[in-house]
Amino acid sequence: MRELFYPRSVAVIGASRNKGKVGYAILENLKLNFKGKVYPVNPNAREILGLKCYSSVLDIEDDVDLAVICVRADLVPGIVEECGKKGVKVAVVISAGFSEVGNRELEERLIEAARKYGVRVVGPNCIGVVNNENGLSTLFSDPEKFKMPENGNIAFVSHSGALGLAVMDKFAEMQVGVNKFASIGNRVDIDESDLLEYFSRDKRVGVVAMYIEGVRNGRKFFNALKKCSKRKPVVVLKAGKTEQGKRAAFSHTASLAGSYEVYRGVFKQANAVEARDLEELMDYVKVFSYYKKVSGRRVAIVTNGGGFGIIATDEAVNEGLELACFEKKSVDKLKKLLPEHCVVSNPLDLTGDADAYRYELALRVLEKDKNVDVICVICLLQLATVGREIVHVLTRGYKKPIVACVGGSAYSIKIVKELQKRGIPVYPTPHRAIKAIRALCEYSEG
Amino acid sequence: MRELFYPRSVAVIGASRNKGKVGYAILENLKLNFKGKVYPVNPNAREILGLKCYSSVLDIEDDVDLAVICVRADLVPGIVEECGKKGVKVAVVISAGFSEVGNRELEERLIEAARKYGVRVVGPNCIGVVNNENGLSTLFSDPEKFKMPENGNIAFVSHSGALGLAVMDKFAEMQVGVNKFASIGNRVDIDESDLLEYFSRDKRVGVVAMYIEGVRNGRKFFNALKKCSKRKPVVVLKAGKTEQGKRAAFSHTASLAGSYEVYRGVFKQANAVEARDLEELMDYVKVFSYYKKVSGRRVAIVTNGGGFGIIATDEAVNEGLELACFEKKSVDKLKKLLPEHCVVSNPLDLTGDADAYRYELALRVLEKDKNVDVICVICLLQLATVGREIVHVLTRGYKKPIVACVGGSAYSIKIVKELQKRGIPVYPTPHRAIKAIRALCEYSEG
Repeated sequence: MRELFYPRSVAVIGASRNKGKVGYAILENLKLNFKGKVYPVNPNAREILGLKCYSSVLDIEDDVDLAVICVRADLVPGIVEECGKKGVKVAVVISAGFSEVGNRELEERLIEAARKYGVRVVGPNCIGVVNNENGLSTLFSDPEKFKMPENGNIAFVSHSGALGLAVMDKFAEMQVGVNKFASIGNRVDIDESDLLEYFSRDKRVGVVAMYIEGVRNGRKFFNALKKCSKRKPVVVLKAGKTEQGKRAAFSHTASLAGSYEVYRGVFKQANAVEARDLEELMDYVKVFSYYKKVSGRRVAIVTNGGGFGIIATDEAVNEGLELACFEKKSVDKLKKLLPEHCVVSNPLDLTGDADAYRYELALRVLEKDKNVDVICVICLLQLATVGREIVHVLTRGYKKPIVACVGGSAYSIKIVKELQKRGIPVYPTPHRAIKAIRALCEYSEG
Repeated sequence: MRELFYPRSVAVIGASRNKGKVGYAILENLKLNFKGKVYPVNPNAREILGLKCYSSVLDIEDDVDLAVICVRADLVPGIVEECGKKGVKVAVVISAGFSEVGNRELEERLIEAARKYGVRVVGPNCIGVVNNENGLSTLFSDPEKFKMPENGNIAFVSHSGALGLAVMDKFAEMQVGVNKFASIGNRVDIDESDLLEYFSRDKRVGVVAMYIEGVRNGRKFFNALKKCSKRKPVVVLKAGKTEQGKRAAFSHTASLAGSYEVYRGVFKQANAVEARDLEELMDYVKVFSYYKKVSGRRVAIVTNGGGFGIIATDEAVNEGLELACFEKKSVDKLKKLLPEHCVVSNPLDLTGDADAYRYELALRVLEKDKNVDVICVICLLQLATVGREIVHVLTRGYKKPIVACVGGSAYSIKIVKELQKRGIPVYPTPHRAIKAIRALCEYSEG
């Protein structure tokens, strides 16, 4: 498995000279970013992108750790056999046209070829893998259309390639850093459980995100999930929950989606964090990329907008959080320090004329409060009195984890980016901030 | 009420020469944007921002339709009395320091003064009103921090000023056009029901958004809501749903939040669309700004990403929509027109190599299908084969309403903006697109 993410050399079998072809995009990408050797393989070319081209993987003088295969489906079994002979450790099969379109026999031949020589396989019918540490990427996306997230502490496993790409692109937008990504398609060999197992031991990975339609082996998955969740949070989105969704999943990746109720039970028992939709998946993964655990579910809400404070309060109660009951000495201090028109209560309403300094006063009191586990800071920046200084105040380092809520247009977006760069996760609405806190609590208690 | 949104002349009582003061920001804003006369009132100034300044509203030679009052709270009753003598029709009282901080007596005096002369009052403790038709705005936000949405067909009523500003700023970001806005604070006179009544007759308004904590008069509200909903959709977010939220609402706008169950009943009976959180409020208002009604809840899902299609299918079923069962002739046509590897079913998976033309083929068939009421188009732009042409294809005009789902970073965001400008509402995740469709269906059936 190590060679899948840390190969010393990669062969692109099906490399193409034609811009717009998958075999061109993959090669170009690797040539530009990958910190290792790259060998194009194409019997009809001598050189591609300035790299010497080989007729067959067998002709490459050097060892080949990883082969990326993007040739016509019917050629794949033969190519995999050649890879086996060459001693290739892992093959990522991008090519589609196997069991997902009913072509089971061809898939069987691919499996046989791989087994015969002990070649591990990712795919077929996948977009492959990314490792942001060494620039490895088999994605064939257009750089104008797709932005690769920066390196971070997330590993992301997706049954769907297009969904994987879309979520990664969104992660880039959300400033969520991804360490490794794998789209595993038809999963004839390496599956979600193998990757979970690997990521559970990978020190660069702090949180695992998964999009699954149906798993191959339930018992294996449960064990891997449980093991990984013990070490780090795993956020899972399961698709194919309804009968209609299951049918769609079957024609997508030939997945047997299975009973959603059984999956929920598995997630719960394994202490995985279930995301009910894509937004939750992205939001939860984000919060876990900042914090692993919290000490409990007693939340303090600090706001400069009364309405947002009330909404956050409602959401906190509905999501099963507790509104922290501040210690008497905190209440006394807050009453002494804050202007009289502030509402010293939970939510703590600093009111519309609050400046960043008032936030700091409040946070310095609440971080010491033994009844507070986590602080939800709402800051509406449309109001005149609070501006960029809030970034310094919120990132000054407090003894309690802070999850922030800031919503608005260009100015707010700029501040959000600064806050996130300096270690504070921010959400655009109270509901999403509170749900992220709930996910943190759930995992911490499991 | 007409003078509140269409005054010929506005006096700013408490106008200030000091940048950073509320009375400066309001005056500057009006001077720059308002298509009517503006009179600053301040006994200690001769001229502000190049405008002649008056000691009292009584000194203004011309008639004054609307007075914006931003003086110290204890001065307000006297000022309102002067406004009455002058014949001012409506006073927007920005000043805070009334019942929301326990100062009931002062509020009573304000009410008396207004009643005596028949001056209608908005506020106190509010940020006032906006009319994007004539540039009227009493908001005192920093233009660097707050972006005013463009003129559109939405009217938005908010019990909270800060929340109103934040949502308006977000609307600007989401390209949701707002026609009129009112933040009504303590509501000593003009309340949410009066505004509903007014907006129900306002032809520029196609949809009403409301953020409410507690209404003053339940019967009046129900009647106004029902009447307005008959003519146009009203989307309501109610805060103070939980006991803790109610307490917070009381210290915010002195609102008695009341039983949430009763409110839900009222919304349902009046056929108002309830938003359960801020994101839903903004998302639903957006879809109604494009479409008023749909013919039914049979949805067709068209996608180039299998995973997104499955998720949308699950969400549609969970939200109580029906997955349209395509007519036989549609199925036959689609099978004939589309490449063999496409999955002709609902969701219709055009697969990852779909170009814009393939979307058009599909939409031309589905728009004629009698079993389809609304089409959810998912387009993942990270994939190489589909690009900007999708804008032309989706906006070519079809017989069925289209709600789109496009998610990602810069490139996708650019396409989303173009689509929305040309009449297609777009959401970043399947769940949000499907929920918007559900809101449309709910209103249409009510």
